[in-house]
Amino acid sequence: MEREPTRIMVAVNESTIKGYPNASISSRGAFEWTLQKIVRSNTSGFKLIFLHVQVPDEDGFDDTDSIYASPDDFKIMERKDRARGLHLLEYFVTRCHEIGVSCEAWIKQGDPKEVICHEVKRVQPDFLVVGSRGLGPFQRVFVGTVSEFCVKHAECPVLTIKRSADEAPQDPVDD
Amino acid sequence: MEREPTRIMVAVNESTIKGYPNASISSRGAFEWTLQKIVRSNTSGFKLIFLHVQVPDEDGFDDTDSIYASPDDFKIMERKDRARGLHLLEYFVTRCHEIGVSCEAWIKQGDPKEVICHEVKRVQPDFLVVGSRGLGPFQRVFVGTVSEFCVKHAECPVLTIKRSADEAPQDPVDD
Repeated sequence: MEREPTRIMVAVNESTIKGYPNASISSRGAFEWTLQKIVRSNTSGFKLIFLHVQVPDEDGFDDTDSIYASPDDFKIMERKDRARGLHLLEYFVTRCHEIGVSCEAWIKQGDPKEVICHEVKRVQPDFLVVGSRGLGPFQRVFVGTVSEFCVKHAECPVLTIKRSADEAPQDPVDD
Repeated sequence: MEREPTRIMVAVNESTIKGYPNASISSRGAFEWTLQKIVRSNTSGFKLIFLHVQVPDEDGFDDTDSIYASPDDFKIMERKDRARGLHLLEYFVTRCHEIGVSCEAWIKQGDPKEVICHEVKRVQPDFLVVGSRGLGPFQRVFVGTVSEFCVKHAECPVLTIKRSADEAPQDPVDD
């Protein structure tokens, strides 16, 4: 009898250029790479756990064409944000179903790097996959990266997948 | 027909406590973890490429009970060093043969982090596995780690596997 599947947590986020529901280049790249190079034909040997962390907007206003006039409007906005996150995850879940890999998907709110490490502790995946934009040393000083934090602090092995050069947009901060 | 196997480069080093030919706790841990969680039953889907980098001794004298009186003595020592590296690799290669995973093994000389990244560029594995001693923030400042360097600079995805807490010796620098 085959052992329990290897549980891979994959952190995914939205594109900084195209926004929701599009996944970032590095998320999609890391996901496809994992299927091709790790899962391969052994689809029953793995389970993917997608985690999307939404960063709460500082002022709560990101829809410039909307008017928030009552507390209910804010609740609607929260539901909309959640719906966008679901659409992002739908892409990954649909792809898994197509190729027959079991999966689950989670949306959480907060600081991505902190939430990812917290969820690793809670869910205890066998390892964590994080895409990285591969920022240069200059950007790294100011931006830091989620992947670097996770490699140091996540309580499981971490697979860091840099975006390949031919996928990178001109401005490395775009993704 | 099955595609080409996924080529995994695994960086391995000797134990700082027991010395050659014993592999470090983190090397053995990373290797066994890779077999159990990635390769699983799909032994024909993967090829392991072991890389052991030997750090040249600063003064060339590490055998305190030996006398080096002629150039030939140094050549003998070099061969001895090489033989030790081979014995270290033998452990990993033997284990692969037992379970039917194809592999190859390399010994190189130099600064491990630089050599590993150089070999990644040359051999172009699908990803690199590095064990990490999981040093605390205090040690990290002074020591740096091979794994951190590789995550940033290696031109392929990098899987960092920290030594688990129950395998760690009292002094985190021992391995």
